[in-house]
Amino acid sequence: MIQSSADTIKKITVVGTGVIGQGWIARFLSQGYQVTANDPAPGAEEKVFTAIKNIWPMLKEKGLTEGASLDNLTFEKDLAKAVADADFIQENAPEREDVKRKLLAEIDELSKPEAIISSSTSGIMPSVLQKDCAHPERVIVAHPFNPVYLIPLVEVVGGEKTDAAVVERARDLFEAARMKPLIVRHEIDGHIGDRLMEAIWREALHIVNDGIATTGEVDASIVYGPGLRWALMGPFLTLHLAGGERGMRHMLEQFGPALKLPWTKLVAPELTEELSDKVISGCEEQTEGQDMATLEKRRDEFLIKLTDLLEEYWPAANLNGRL
Amino acid sequence: MIQSSADTIKKITVVGTGVIGQGWIARFLSQGYQVTANDPAPGAEEKVFTAIKNIWPMLKEKGLTEGASLDNLTFEKDLAKAVADADFIQENAPEREDVKRKLLAEIDELSKPEAIISSSTSGIMPSVLQKDCAHPERVIVAHPFNPVYLIPLVEVVGGEKTDAAVVERARDLFEAARMKPLIVRHEIDGHIGDRLMEAIWREALHIVNDGIATTGEVDASIVYGPGLRWALMGPFLTLHLAGGERGMRHMLEQFGPALKLPWTKLVAPELTEELSDKVISGCEEQTEGQDMATLEKRRDEFLIKLTDLLEEYWPAANLNGRL
Repeated sequence: MIQSSADTIKKITVVGTGVIGQGWIARFLSQGYQVTANDPAPGAEEKVFTAIKNIWPMLKEKGLTEGASLDNLTFEKDLAKAVADADFIQENAPEREDVKRKLLAEIDELSKPEAIISSSTSGIMPSVLQKDCAHPERVIVAHPFNPVYLIPLVEVVGGEKTDAAVVERARDLFEAARMKPLIVRHEIDGHIGDRLMEAIWREALHIVNDGIATTGEVDASIVYGPGLRWALMGPFLTLHLAGGERGMRHMLEQFGPALKLPWTKLVAPELTEELSDKVISGCEEQTEGQDMATLEKRRDEFLIKLTDLLEEYWPAANLNGRL
Repeated sequence: MIQSSADTIKKITVVGTGVIGQGWIARFLSQGYQVTANDPAPGAEEKVFTAIKNIWPMLKEKGLTEGASLDNLTFEKDLAKAVADADFIQENAPEREDVKRKLLAEIDELSKPEAIISSSTSGIMPSVLQKDCAHPERVIVAHPFNPVYLIPLVEVVGGEKTDAAVVERARDLFEAARMKPLIVRHEIDGHIGDRLMEAIWREALHIVNDGIATTGEVDASIVYGPGLRWALMGPFLTLHLAGGERGMRHMLEQFGPALKLPWTKLVAPELTEELSDKVISGCEEQTEGQDMATLEKRRDEFLIKLTDLLEEYWPAANLNGRL
């Protein structure tokens, strides 16, 4: 029985306690949940407690929810005991389809049928992961970003057999945990965020491989440039605000030809009228009718504060050994 | 005669006063330079003064250099008069090779032979742009990022015939103007920053085109996730800090197989041993021997302040209509 309200989720079990698992534990603990950690690796219990204790002062500084406490963390080595009472189970096993499918099927068998089973997989589709489960309707992907206790984005994806109500309950839970859940409309390998990161990552590797720049120069070319804008705006709004009064419409007219230039090692999509319309109207909806001057002012004020922050935290970034 | 010291650059002429030209004017004015603006378009003079006056209060808030004044801006419609006395000329004509080559050749003819001629081109290589100039040794590309008066990155690229000393003088000038000049080792179409932006932009277009997400969802997937990290770290350091104690070395072992997955529409480079070494040693040099705990603490403190800032400036970002 899938219930519709998120406030029924009290007990969370995190299976797998590597960097991502630890991040989930810290996130949920800081938001007042009871968390059980499970990991079969030797020494895992000590490692996870040490890691969470190290992060805790920072989470305190950021602001804990009432009732949040390190005492709400339990380690349970036995998987059956760890998941038996859980309302929500977050799996963080190594990124291998066979490993994850087997583990999820076990969790499915050992947990309450109304519990939600969620995988942190960065690349595998939920329809694949839920295949061996007797109750696939409660299996989802919830893909977070490192460090999970600070980065708000989590991509939530249901598979073919996932009940839509489960996706909604998971969204409610992540919002309650002060995250920004992004429901992915159709499952694809790599979801959304990782595809975009992969794109930049592959091009960055080409640039280093071709001797155009060092890793430090590539990083600097992001940190002091596009990265400052991406912290506030994604790729679409960034261009929308670079196009003058006519915004994205102007940029697409300019980009039409440039998109076909063999600049990157990518294959560009055909810029059809339909795609243009989608992109332009998307940007207009995002900005809710605010005029360019207002948008630009907001961006600029943000950038002033962000560049000050950057100066404080990244004074040693290496640009040709000069900066 | 190319001189070696940047303090000989007093008078700057900005040719072309669109969004990028205006950005250069505001940047140089705020740093105390004498700036002449030139643009043949009807109404350009009024437009440029209005734009700079609008930006000025923000530049004041950020902190003007001593002697910086709106009174240091002159508009000169005649190109010959505009460039005659200039020590440094920044060209911002439309992004067409024929237009830029012709204009740069004119500037080359009309300016002092020791003046530096710099193009804002986002994609064309300096060796191409300097072809029709009688003094190609003083022609460079200096590619800025919008808004130029706030984003510090400027990519500086010399062509085949460019004197290396000119690149150094330009670097000194940009540093004096509180920018972060990145000298691009070898000229390529799109330099570095735009290639990386193009990579993400093309993948983003594919995602929208395939109906996986709206532009707003794509933007949110950057703003609330990777974008927060890219403001502090580029693609390499981001991964270096996601790999646990062993950093990039661990990530490349994991990424080896994943890089070949057909996730994105890109062509991935072969991850040879040489490329692996380059990437790993690059990250280690960038972090100057600091341990992971120190690096992670700095990243986390930055992220706390940045996410607070984001909450203040981007409360209306649209995520499935819920946020």
